[in-house]
Amino acid sequence: MEGYKSFLFFLISSLLLGFALVIFVLVWVLHYSDGLAWNGDSAEFNWHPVLIITGFVFMEGIAVIVYRLPWTWKCSKLLMKFIHAGLHLTAAVLVIIALVAVFDFHNAKKIPNMYSLHSWVGLVVVILFMLQIVVSIVVFLIPTTPVSVRAALMPVHVYGGLLLFGGVIGTALMGITEKLIFSLKNPPYSSLPPHAIFVNTLGILIVVFGGLIIWIATRPDWKRPPEPTVKEHSSYRETSIPPPEYSKTDKSDVELNSEAARKRNLNLDEAGQRSTM
Amino acid sequence: MEGYKSFLFFLISSLLLGFALVIFVLVWVLHYSDGLAWNGDSAEFNWHPVLIITGFVFMEGIAVIVYRLPWTWKCSKLLMKFIHAGLHLTAAVLVIIALVAVFDFHNAKKIPNMYSLHSWVGLVVVILFMLQIVVSIVVFLIPTTPVSVRAALMPVHVYGGLLLFGGVIGTALMGITEKLIFSLKNPPYSSLPPHAIFVNTLGILIVVFGGLIIWIATRPDWKRPPEPTVKEHSSYRETSIPPPEYSKTDKSDVELNSEAARKRNLNLDEAGQRSTM
Repeated sequence: MEGYKSFLFFLISSLLLGFALVIFVLVWVLHYSDGLAWNGDSAEFNWHPVLIITGFVFMEGIAVIVYRLPWTWKCSKLLMKFIHAGLHLTAAVLVIIALVAVFDFHNAKKIPNMYSLHSWVGLVVVILFMLQIVVSIVVFLIPTTPVSVRAALMPVHVYGGLLLFGGVIGTALMGITEKLIFSLKNPPYSSLPPHAIFVNTLGILIVVFGGLIIWIATRPDWKRPPEPTVKEHSSYRETSIPPPEYSKTDKSDVELNSEAARKRNLNLDEAGQRSTM
Repeated sequence: MEGYKSFLFFLISSLLLGFALVIFVLVWVLHYSDGLAWNGDSAEFNWHPVLIITGFVFMEGIAVIVYRLPWTWKCSKLLMKFIHAGLHLTAAVLVIIALVAVFDFHNAKKIPNMYSLHSWVGLVVVILFMLQIVVSIVVFLIPTTPVSVRAALMPVHVYGGLLLFGGVIGTALMGITEKLIFSLKNPPYSSLPPHAIFVNTLGILIVVFGGLIIWIATRPDWKRPPEPTVKEHSSYRETSIPPPEYSKTDKSDVELNSEAARKRNLNLDEAGQRSTM
């Protein structure tokens, strides 16, 4: 891997920051707010930020970069796909519980649902996230899906995943803004009490975490290398679609020259011919 | 250009949406709010969303994709750099006026400054945006900057630009959230009056605009083709750095085969050897 030390720096920073996010949100609800419970009160609402930040920010962030971990490059692509999908599905379950918590709290307190921009953007993000999961399972995990369909949808899958991750972060920032305005009355948010400084800092850390994850995910040098050539050839044979680059190349040459393979692989990526996320 | 029709669809959609954003924010402040003035009152505050959405969202969005317009590919790279920088500088002026408007309004009304997460993230984005402009002028516009420095900083420049654009959108969404909570009291935001529906819709359109611009900016097929080979060679000669790919290639071949040139050019981009944004 080119720039391995730089990769390690970004990976460790994002992991530390990810754990810090979870600790920050727990301190927020347990120390500055009313704790966690399932009682229709603000302690039930508190599950919303805890589960969103744990599942939709931290876990999603890891899911986005899981193919980039060089220690997993010896594992089969299928195993990595299952881990990638598993992280997304676990995040989806946490997100659903987070939504139930906030709707249940609103209903118990007779607070209207779905009026704020946070809720509008959030609902769009959740619906598109669920759609992305279903489409991706059909396209990238069911073995009979033609390679041409996978190739056509890969750029949309990758872009959609990163856009949704960015959308989650934007929605979380709006949620924090709303919650601090509503819950900080005496002293008010505008007097910037420790509670406000602490949660604003959480917001800034969420943005930095998002920036690190998207940087890692978009460096071409840090992509998972291509699958072994024989397998790639056979999968193309099954679907009777000629491999776009390898067909012109001597197989043993590709297997021996991993740098050449990496460069060719980047070309495949550009055409969306290879699954990297 | 590969996928020209698709490019046109995304470009026209984003332009229409960009103009719609400006119209929406004008209708917001002129019809639903207190209009525009410079009087220390809410009409002065209103310059803040108008100038941010016009300068920091719409104009910035166009600046991000200006190299992608195939009709400009006959223009010199230097001219396009000036247009790119000019759009950013114009946006920077509008953003500064937008900040003055909100600080002036706060001071006149004795509202504290810089307490909300919107203001924290917003200030970080503005500082990094100004820093990006200064560094980019030094690195990419001053002719004596070595190509190796340009190459090293290009991926950071491109990523930083897109991240800042995303940061602007996230900050704008928090700003809309704050403003609707503070200004809608009777009827309240939670009762979702037409004012709230209209401005929530503006928020959703900002997100869609951001998604379209980043899609256009990140499609490899829609990048500006490389500069004429002779020029490229001579600029490498000046700095005594060998061109990474062309050195192995017959020059006339490159000039004749534009598709091959485009593919090689993608390799240059990966190494940050070419300025594309």
